[in-house]
Amino acid sequence: MTPTLTAFKASPDRGRGLARDMRVRWAFEELGQPYDVRLVTFAEMKAPAHLALHPFGQIPTYEAGELAIFESGAIILHIAQRHAGLLPEEANGRARAITWMFAALSTMEPPIIERETSMFTERDKPWFDERLPAVDGRIRTRLGQLSDRLADADWLDGGFSVGDLLMVSVLQRLGSSGLVAEHPNLAAYVARAEARPAYRRAFEAQYAVFLAAQTT
Amino acid sequence: MTPTLTAFKASPDRGRGLARDMRVRWAFEELGQPYDVRLVTFAEMKAPAHLALHPFGQIPTYEAGELAIFESGAIILHIAQRHAGLLPEEANGRARAITWMFAALSTMEPPIIERETSMFTERDKPWFDERLPAVDGRIRTRLGQLSDRLADADWLDGGFSVGDLLMVSVLQRLGSSGLVAEHPNLAAYVARAEARPAYRRAFEAQYAVFLAAQTT
Repeated sequence: MTPTLTAFKASPDRGRGLARDMRVRWAFEELGQPYDVRLVTFAEMKAPAHLALHPFGQIPTYEAGELAIFESGAIILHIAQRHAGLLPEEANGRARAITWMFAALSTMEPPIIERETSMFTERDKPWFDERLPAVDGRIRTRLGQLSDRLADADWLDGGFSVGDLLMVSVLQRLGSSGLVAEHPNLAAYVARAEARPAYRRAFEAQYAVFLAAQTT
Repeated sequence: MTPTLTAFKASPDRGRGLARDMRVRWAFEELGQPYDVRLVTFAEMKAPAHLALHPFGQIPTYEAGELAIFESGAIILHIAQRHAGLLPEEANGRARAITWMFAALSTMEPPIIERETSMFTERDKPWFDERLPAVDGRIRTRLGQLSDRLADADWLDGGFSVGDLLMVSVLQRLGSSGLVAEHPNLAAYVARAEARPAYRRAFEAQYAVFLAAQTT
């Protein structure tokens, strides 16, 4: 059976591919697996039917037969374990790829989300200009460490894996901040991932949702 | 072979069990598996030998034979997949338990860490008192949603799992803030977890490190 994802009917990122359904679409494309999408409004996300699928009222969710799960990381790990292409066959390599998934979501992404939240909610606060450099400093520390580890490799640990997919998805959230560009190897890493045909297909699919929302 | 974890030689939490080795110790205890611990100083954590194990210069790391991984979530998932006790046998239940691991680390923990960071680094800033309620507001939203989902159940999805282990570990970081206590079912959930014999054994083991550091 074809699994169903939820995604924003009107994504706040205006089709830039930063909503978390994009990561899951990308994983499906890398795995060569079909998926269906059900679009939800913000009101629907906070309603009981959606909260039964996602207790925190967010997207994406994943439904396939009797199984319903949420959290982009959990969904991607689930499908990567069921279909070849995003996890090494060898057990130790698999454990290391999963390590990079957690590093992306638990170590790298939180200060980046803090920066985003600050940009959205504190721009008009008197402390905004003084406080942002401290947040950026924490992000820079992580980016420097990631850059050191990546060095001149194409991907974080051997071939492209779920770890790279999530790490690139997280780095993309830094958008026009210029922080990724401070490390040419990280900028090249993101560009290398974005050039993958599976990434392009996923990006176009989510962008089509944005375009459709503009005309309705 | 017995795996080796790294932990702080002198934990900044003074033995309160909030350092991230505690989660992994607890998982080992729940699984009935032995583990060794290698203590590292802050200077050692930033030195090349440790950075080779953990590119972000943190604890814990996990080494077993040829495998070396980091990130408490990745380590716990790895050992839970190899030994029975923290993941349901049934595939869908297993996917849901893993979903709660990601929810703990990726949805619940980030605003809690933001609060901690603010408490450590911004207490003397003129904006601290005005800004903290906004951070607490974001945490309260998540706690309310978690409380609604847990309702009057003992654990998040059937029996105690890795998802509960990580969720409780994250909630504990709210410590004396009083935020968890606003939801009696969440306070009882944390207390229920802390009463588990495996939790007590893990807590005592990390507390013994703190006590030893006091006398040397």
